Amino acid sequence: MLDFPTEDWSAEDLARLRGIYEPLAESVRALVDATIRTEADAETVAAVKAEIDQAVSRLRERQIDGAFGARHTTAGETVAWGNAVVGVRNALAPPVATRRDESGRVSADFHLGAAYEGPPGHVHGGVSALILDHLLGEAASPDRKPRFTGSITVRYLRATPLGAQHVEAVRTRSDGVKTYCTGTISDAGGVTVEAEGVFITPRWLRD
Amino acid sequence: MLDFPTEDWSAEDLARLRGIYEPLAESVRALVDATIRTEADAETVAAVKAEIDQAVSRLRERQIDGAFGARHTTAGETVAWGNAVVGVRNALAPPVATRRDESGRVSADFHLGAAYEGPPGHVHGGVSALILDHLLGEAASPDRKPRFTGSITVRYLRATPLGAQHVEAVRTRSDGVKTYCTGTISDAGGVTVEAEGVFITPRWLRD
Repeated sequence: MLDFPTEDWSAEDLARLRGIYEPLAESVRALVDATIRTEADAETVAAVKAEIDQAVSRLRERQIDGAFGARHTTAGETVAWGNAVVGVRNALAPPVATRRDESGRVSADFHLGAAYEGPPGHVHGGVSALILDHLLGEAASPDRKPRFTGSITVRYLRATPLGAQHVEAVRTRSDGVKTYCTGTISDAGGVTVEAEGVFITPRWLRD
Repeated sequence: MLDFPTEDWSAEDLARLRGIYEPLAESVRALVDATIRTEADAETVAAVKAEIDQAVSRLRERQIDGAFGARHTTAGETVAWGNAVVGVRNALAPPVATRRDESGRVSADFHLGAAYEGPPGHVHGGVSALILDHLLGEAASPDRKPRFTGSITVRYLRATPLGAQHVEAVRTRSDGVKTYCTGTISDAGGVTVEAEGVFITPRWLRD
């Protein structure tokens, strides 16, 4: 039985496949965290490693070539489950689940734990840049067509403690193939990081 | 037996602990990749998930509170094994293993696979920003004392295919508490992303 339809996915395909693979990625996220924080002894760690290696072999018995890429649904959605920020099958992604309001503002609430650390107890500055780049890119693409980052500037107002985060981004203006966006990351104490970026419409999407 | 000395680590402690925990993180990196790419059926995925959950429980029986933070060695090195870019115990980190030449240039060669994807088959623009932020920060700190990103601008010259990458960064000048750095990411075809940043000496390190 092939679980992956080769045609565009229906809403049922999407829900069925997500139900199979998303819970595994959630468990792997917990494993990433535990791998950083464990103080288990050498024997326990070696035994767990052997189990993980076996699990990898089982999963790899049938796998796609290369990265996940993008699949499409019959409803016109793009499925990017391998994406480093929003991919529900990617244990590196927090994942950030974005929403878009009527004005075009894109936002998300998410949690960053031990795996996103830079300065002790704080979010790595580059992780904030990673997430802002993604949110600004979504804000630049209200038509769901991709626009690629031309440049982004990220300013750090203060260190961001690990924990609950809020991110939001808006499109401020467009000028030909360039779309300008701004965004912020905040915690309970207010904005910690702000960004502005220029996003470029790829040639194959121009007129 | 407590594996983690509470005092500064000797070179022997460092090697022993790395030998225990680094191989586990390497296996978890492979698992992250397989979790994105597998086409295993629902039964196999559920069985693997149950094994992972058990492994997490075993590892969590004894774990540190919160994130890994920084440990120190008797030789004055900082051990940041949980770091999101260079942490050898962090399966989110490629990891990037940096080297510093006599001129102060910091560089690294590393590989980005399916877990770092943004546009299909290509590195997420934010991942490039994450890695450049880290390298510029290291270049800003030749004395191994931390400097924190004030702001960073990242420019994308072209899309970066997943695969082998080279990153390097240099300090260009210092002005009071501000240190300026630049850097690039390249692949076999040349520079794909460039960055410039301002790094700030924290108050507690100022004379």
